Amino acid sequence: MHTDLVAALDIGGTKIAGALVDGHGRIQARAQRPTPAQEHGETVMRAVAEVLGDLAESPLWERAGAVGIGSAGPVDASAGTVSPVNVPGWRDFPLVERVRAASGGLPVELIGDGVAITAAEHWQGAARGHDNALCMVVSTGVGGGLVLGGRLHPGPTGNAGHIGHISVDLDGDPCPCGSRGCVERIASGPNIARRALAEGWRPGPDGDTSAAAVAAAARAGDPVAMASFERAAQALAAGIAATATLVEIDIAVIGGGVGKAGEVLFTPLRKALSDYATLSFVRRLTVTPAQMGTDAGLVGAAAAALARRPDATAGV
Amino acid sequence: MHTDLVAALDIGGTKIAGALVDGHGRIQARAQRPTPAQEHGETVMRAVAEVLGDLAESPLWERAGAVGIGSAGPVDASAGTVSPVNVPGWRDFPLVERVRAASGGLPVELIGDGVAITAAEHWQGAARGHDNALCMVVSTGVGGGLVLGGRLHPGPTGNAGHIGHISVDLDGDPCPCGSRGCVERIASGPNIARRALAEGWRPGPDGDTSAAAVAAAARAGDPVAMASFERAAQALAAGIAATATLVEIDIAVIGGGVGKAGEVLFTPLRKALSDYATLSFVRRLTVTPAQMGTDAGLVGAAAAALARRPDATAGV
Repeated sequence: MHTDLVAALDIGGTKIAGALVDGHGRIQARAQRPTPAQEHGETVMRAVAEVLGDLAESPLWERAGAVGIGSAGPVDASAGTVSPVNVPGWRDFPLVERVRAASGGLPVELIGDGVAITAAEHWQGAARGHDNALCMVVSTGVGGGLVLGGRLHPGPTGNAGHIGHISVDLDGDPCPCGSRGCVERIASGPNIARRALAEGWRPGPDGDTSAAAVAAAARAGDPVAMASFERAAQALAAGIAATATLVEIDIAVIGGGVGKAGEVLFTPLRKALSDYATLSFVRRLTVTPAQMGTDAGLVGAAAAALARRPDATAGV
Repeated sequence: MHTDLVAALDIGGTKIAGALVDGHGRIQARAQRPTPAQEHGETVMRAVAEVLGDLAESPLWERAGAVGIGSAGPVDASAGTVSPVNVPGWRDFPLVERVRAASGGLPVELIGDGVAITAAEHWQGAARGHDNALCMVVSTGVGGGLVLGGRLHPGPTGNAGHIGHISVDLDGDPCPCGSRGCVERIASGPNIARRALAEGWRPGPDGDTSAAAVAAAARAGDPVAMASFERAAQALAAGIAATATLVEIDIAVIGGGVGKAGEVLFTPLRKALSDYATLSFVRRLTVTPAQMGTDAGLVGAAAAALARRPDATAGV
């Protein structure tokens, strides 16, 4: 049987998306369910099985040779388990084994969602053609992944690139992860909004206190809103510079809701990067917005599955 | 001709060491010159050529199939040039081309000195058998290198693993590199001593104000000396945790003069690591002293040269 497709799953706290994806990264069939995130683990698994069941009804299903999963983290690719922070019913849940069974025994590749986004940006998006890249998602949290030496670097457990939880302020505010001064604790959307409100920014008549509203205020010249984005940019720059200094990357790609803030974020980010990325071999580092849309997780999960197959065409 | 040896060069600000090294990492011949660090670049190169000339007088020289160089950084392995901070006469100095010429046309492999130490610890020392490791030198400066997926990760320019110059305190003290709050700015030997003196520690009758003297005082229970090592340990822990969170390592090896301070450093370091390395996939990270001695740079340079040869036996 000719297996030129893969099945892809993008599992988050809000939805479980599935697709059949071809060797060019094109989505040929789709399925989706809401994530019953607060329910029993078996209930969550039933939603995953339903997504796979919907895909299996496609006449294309028999051409699928593997399943790629990008899941909210932490994941443990070596054990085949996931423990997503926002899905309490899944702790060390044996997702790989369960998906293999639910898909009729197909080989299954598991990576974290930040790694999946990175695989997608490297294959089809802003990191295409770059052998050494950091791709980030800056939104409610801050996640990421790495491409090193032309290949995705998921690490042994599939969690590498977790830039949101490196400390750039060792005496800083406690982070829910247990550490202090993490990039996420300073640069995530909720923290941008929190800091602006604490410093006296007030929302408009619509009462919107999201980071997007702070971004709009910053674009209109509100100094407190601008300062909150500048502080987020500083933390992101310190984290990106640390990554480049540690593993040598030449591009950092930033997606997610905060990444969409545009020059309100990118102008101070480029300035701060010149402050923190000082050694000769990191000075040419560039930052750029992500190009992949909401399908990035699916396309990246597909890329990871394709990369493990001998007839892989995905460039990851 | 049977080429089962490599020539190795370890180039620092104080000395230029050379050796012929076999496939088991054993040194079969040696040569050395002081580094004329403040002289003209051609004078420094002459010292390198003399070291190679001494090695070439060995009857074993004809069995050398390549030259490996570990050099003080920054280096640029892609361009084949070096610009060591402490050797001002060498700026973008074409060391690879010059060594190739001086060695009769042998292939030359260039890596930074932190990467060389790492290659040695991975091949023969404390990181042996670990597929994902960070090796550090903590002394006058703080350097390092990475093993990822079982292989040395020098990065495109040979500088990866530069943990001394990642910022763990984004609002911290200015670092000579141009950034702020770098690991080296807090944890190097001179900074440990500086901080202890500033906080009121005073040397003994011998007037020794080195980090080793502060370590001795800390072992004797001096609270200011202990606090200075604890602060260094905190910065090292934040940097090591950041590295593990970014690329997934399971061991950090610490050498250099400060690394020799023993439990005065390692006890607070292990405690601080539990504060900063919080995510599930980094919690099992261990720290351990380096095992290689003063030949680490030579052995590591040899390992890098052997690793690029098809008949390589070095496990890097």
